[in-house]
Amino acid sequence: MGTEVIIVGVGAEQGLGAAVARRFAREGHHVLLAGRTAEKLDRVAAAIQAAGGSAEAVVADATDEAAIGTLFARAHQPEIVVFNAGSNLRRPFRELTVVEVENTWRTNTLGGFIVAREAARHLVPQGRGTLILTGATASLRGASGFAAFAAAKAGLRALAQSAARELGPLGLHVAHAVIDGGIDGERLRSRSPERAEAAGPDGLLSIDAIAEAYWQLHRQHRSAWTLELDLRPYGEKF
Amino acid sequence: MGTEVIIVGVGAEQGLGAAVARRFAREGHHVLLAGRTAEKLDRVAAAIQAAGGSAEAVVADATDEAAIGTLFARAHQPEIVVFNAGSNLRRPFRELTVVEVENTWRTNTLGGFIVAREAARHLVPQGRGTLILTGATASLRGASGFAAFAAAKAGLRALAQSAARELGPLGLHVAHAVIDGGIDGERLRSRSPERAEAAGPDGLLSIDAIAEAYWQLHRQHRSAWTLELDLRPYGEKF
Amino acid sequence: MGTEVIIVGVGAEQGLGAAVARRFAREGHHVLLAGRTAEKLDRVAAAIQAAGGSAEAVVADATDEAAIGTLFARAHQPEIVVFNAGSNLRRPFRELTVVEVENTWRTNTLGGFIVAREAARHLVPQGRGTLILTGATASLRGASGFAAFAAAKAGLRALAQSAARELGPLGLHVAHAVIDGGIDGERLRSRSPERAEAAGPDGLLSIDAIAEAYWQLHRQHRSAWTLELDLRPYGEKF
Amino acid sequence: MGTEVIIVGVGAEQGLGAAVARRFAREGHHVLLAGRTAEKLDRVAAAIQAAGGSAEAVVADATDEAAIGTLFARAHQPEIVVFNAGSNLRRPFRELTVVEVENTWRTNTLGGFIVAREAARHLVPQGRGTLILTGATASLRGASGFAAFAAAKAGLRALAQSAARELGPLGLHVAHAVIDGGIDGERLRSRSPERAEAAGPDGLLSIDAIAEAYWQLHRQHRSAWTLELDLRPYGEKF
Repeated sequence: MGTEVIIVGVGAEQGLGAAVARRFAREGHHVLLAGRTAEKLDRVAAAIQAAGGSAEAVVADATDEAAIGTLFARAHQPEIVVFNAGSNLRRPFRELTVVEVENTWRTNTLGGFIVAREAARHLVPQGRGTLILTGATASLRGASGFAAFAAAKAGLRALAQSAARELGPLGLHVAHAVIDGGIDGERLRSRSPERAEAAGPDGLLSIDAIAEAYWQLHRQHRSAWTLELDLRPYGEKF
Repeated sequence: MGTEVIIVGVGAEQGLGAAVARRFAREGHHVLLAGRTAEKLDRVAAAIQAAGGSAEAVVADATDEAAIGTLFARAHQPEIVVFNAGSNLRRPFRELTVVEVENTWRTNTLGGFIVAREAARHLVPQGRGTLILTGATASLRGASGFAAFAAAKAGLRALAQSAARELGPLGLHVAHAVIDGGIDGERLRSRSPERAEAAGPDGLLSIDAIAEAYWQLHRQHRSAWTLELDLRPYGEKF
Repeated sequence: MGTEVIIVGVGAEQGLGAAVARRFAREGHHVLLAGRTAEKLDRVAAAIQAAGGSAEAVVADATDEAAIGTLFARAHQPEIVVFNAGSNLRRPFRELTVVEVENTWRTNTLGGFIVAREAARHLVPQGRGTLILTGATASLRGASGFAAFAAAKAGLRALAQSAARELGPLGLHVAHAVIDGGIDGERLRSRSPERAEAAGPDGLLSIDAIAEAYWQLHRQHRSAWTLELDLRPYGEKF
Repeated sequence: MGTEVIIVGVGAEQGLGAAVARRFAREGHHVLLAGRTAEKLDRVAAAIQAAGGSAEAVVADATDEAAIGTLFARAHQPEIVVFNAGSNLRRPFRELTVVEVENTWRTNTLGGFIVAREAARHLVPQGRGTLILTGATASLRGASGFAAFAAAKAGLRALAQSAARELGPLGLHVAHAVIDGGIDGERLRSRSPERAEAAGPDGLLSIDAIAEAYWQLHRQHRSAWTLELDLRPYGEKF
């Protein structure tokens, strides 16, 4: 049996999680697709299988410790884990509720922790493996109107740093990708079609291009690992 | 009635919260001291009053939204709010529990949010005021063994940035202090006496020196505000 | 004789160097004013003397090693040194010349080094002292059109970090101020009156407010020193 | 004729410049090797040719504007430019000389500027191309004893940021690599054999691994470009 890959946060076929899954499957890896919606997962898995790849769908919410435990228990020797779940929130500071702040933290930070810890527990004993966490512009900078999201993403980033410093020497490559721009996927195209329109050619991040970057992170030789990779469209203001 | 100051996170007399309270009381401000332990608060309040200052103690946990609401309701026109609560945690990544991660976030990030939002709601309508949030080395850097703490402190920092960018133009000075070293207070001296010993003269941050820096942050003219202030002992390695 | 202060980069009376000089003179310190234009220095010195302070003017260019040596030789036991020289440059990347890049580096970085090293040589043996270096937005971020300036200011900042880490433990407080906005002084008001107009009340940094921040940096207790202080108007976008 | 690659800063065969040259030559690109020592360049060129690749040696110092102009004039339509020159310096702050500071700046920053500007002039009109600048740990942090080096490397980094923000939208991919650790090449092995020994297996950065990362930077789709890539050995403390 080939190397197993676990991707948490798989939704629409034209989404980042699915693109990452396809990229790793294309290399002959068996891919476990985890997400919250069975039908979406099934579609992504079926497409991978139809293309000759190996994939299975597992309904699991990243914030559910037991579900993530079960997910990892289904793998034999996973070597690559990608955390791709997350949710954004834009809200004036004074209107933010505790529930919103908590939910945003839960989805972006706690879910990341649960997946990262489980990855560490399974991969470190093998002395090798790759854990990739998906960040955003807000991981580096708290913009006006994004306090909850920035707090959550900055938390995930700090967690990645701690894990990298502790577990890198044990052979686990922890990498944090800062997706600095709109992702050209189903979510943005359905929610903000005008933004997609305005971006122009290659003005949004191609999901396949991000997936390729994740694949290259995994391929890095352990003498030259990257902890943080920023990715943005060529025309992005930053 | 003079300007009111609300300080959340007041404990021992030889602690940072108490020192900040004394500093602001010394300027003639009425100080509301909030913390979890009535006896400690009462001792700090009594000492301030004995020195001719004005202070009152309010038992309130920063993570308790209702309690913080009640605290602010007791003030008439608070102008300065300091968030000083927090808890550290050192733990190998794979041993961290969800409960630990959540509690650390709750104390450091959520508590900070609740206090900051309440401050924003009371201070912004006046068009002026100062909100100071206490950070740590971990606010900037996730060290090995400190994933939960770093995630929480980085979250608080991002939140401060968002609030500053949104509310600064409305007259609220949001400042984040990065305390980069051991604080020469009761907590460290009782828990790590050997560390206090090894630090040498002025090798730990004097609580009065930090309090002075907070006072100066408040005094800044609005044409030249500081968002982030690092503070460390002269001999600190960094 | 009181404490001596050396300020390099003094020009117009309504400029930052002059304001810093006045602030320190007001505390009873003897101030050596260094700059490139004798008449400007004389006017600033005369005004300080007229106000009861003690000041002397020394024509010296920060980039002239010998002149800075002479300047420091005129002081007996300087305790505070401020580097405030600098020059900005906005130019499309492909049009920048080697001469422009070199001159920008010379004024902002090399001048800073020469002053900082001389300060270190005089202050460290006393086991105490303060060295403040003036930075800018570009110290942290290379914006489009500002390659030469950003490279020079980032260089000055890195130099401040190195000096702080090496000389802090020897008693020299090295601080770097990031002036993140337009300074409300003669230079900006004469060159970009429309910008001053558009900024609105307190929309530019008051030179006196910056000078006050420098004074407070000097006053910090060595158990709680700041290395980097950002200063920006309350309404500044950042 | 295939795509041309210009690599400035090629020395020993077991050095980073040479490894990058081999990596790009392996993809069928014609490689122009620039450095200061003809014999070294010739050896690297000969080895590439012997392996079936296409390479030519050009003696050119990065800090020599005319020489770099001549170098670029020899290329027809270069598409990839790598700046790999640089020199380190460790020296107590008070002992640093102006000449040392200037030379360090000249080699690391000015050379980078000259090469980057020439690259911009040749690549931007084509609407595509990749410019990679080699940085170091000091690019991000001024450590004690490294003021000159950190100032120079931070300057190069700021310059990369400015160029990326201005020229990215015009199709030029500017990337800055932070080499955060010792490079396993001839320089380190000859100067610090004990350090190479102590590093253990894969404890220094493999030059081929860095070269691979540079190649991948070039291959990135323009919808997902990386500006800054950190690379460090798995066991590196940071």
